[in-house]
Amino acid sequence: MGLLIDKVQLTPLSVIPLAAGNVMHAMQRSSAGFAGFGEAYFSWIGSGVTKGWKRHREMTLNLVVPVGLVAFAVVDAEAGIGRRYELGPEAYARLTIPPGLWMAFRGHASNQSLMLNIADIEHDPTEADRLAETAFALDWNAPAYPVGPDQRIDL
Amino acid sequence: MGLLIDKVQLTPLSVIPLAAGNVMHAMQRSSAGFAGFGEAYFSWIGSGVTKGWKRHREMTLNLVVPVGLVAFAVVDAEAGIGRRYELGPEAYARLTIPPGLWMAFRGHASNQSLMLNIADIEHDPTEADRLAETAFALDWNAPAYPVGPDQRIDL
Repeated sequence: MGLLIDKVQLTPLSVIPLAAGNVMHAMQRSSAGFAGFGEAYFSWIGSGVTKGWKRHREMTLNLVVPVGLVAFAVVDAEAGIGRRYELGPEAYARLTIPPGLWMAFRGHASNQSLMLNIADIEHDPTEADRLAETAFALDWNAPAYPVGPDQRIDL
Repeated sequence: MGLLIDKVQLTPLSVIPLAAGNVMHAMQRSSAGFAGFGEAYFSWIGSGVTKGWKRHREMTLNLVVPVGLVAFAVVDAEAGIGRRYELGPEAYARLTIPPGLWMAFRGHASNQSLMLNIADIEHDPTEADRLAETAFALDWNAPAYPVGPDQRIDL
């Protein structure tokens, strides 16, 4: 079976450099991690500001960051393990988070950062659980996955 | 029947103001104009720079602009009519362009603008026709639809 957190996928994405303005891939129907299309929405995140924790019971998240730099923390409460990821246009990739994991994200750029979530279901407030930002003590400044180590989370 | 250009849809979108960073809707499976999910990609566009003209034979485009200000021009070559639209976070909306229409877009912000296209098919260079930027003489500074008038396009 393995751990649920091992089902998180980090998929490098292409940036096509063009003089008129770059094209940046986000997701194709045939992409790794694609779980269906329900809704796409943007979330801005201020510098040093955290959104979360939130645990979706049904939604698979597919996250890309075209502007700024965003740190994502994912916690597998069953295994007591947390991991940190970092997304932005410089190290451009898509983060796929399956349902059942706690996640929070924090703006790590000097200005606001922009995240796009391509979710497999439409927004439904009843399918997500929430905890305060302080619920899990995770080191937000540790090196990001896969360089950074798994963090032990005391529940 | 009506004109093909009358099938272009401009759909206002919600912005949810949050202290930690706004949430901006883009598209739901149940949204007006949704034609299926094939691919989502970003396109940056420089200030005063134009991309196009391009005519997709199969793809329906669903366009949103979370950063900057982008002018879109759509030409119905059969009817000889052009229309100008404008998208950005201040007047936040989604532009749905069905296949068969020529389109071009231009950055109208002082910095780069960011467009997201949620397309119903994956990228396929063989399903699109291209023309030079000068192919249609459209007034890029006319008032945007629905305020601005239809522009007569000489072919």
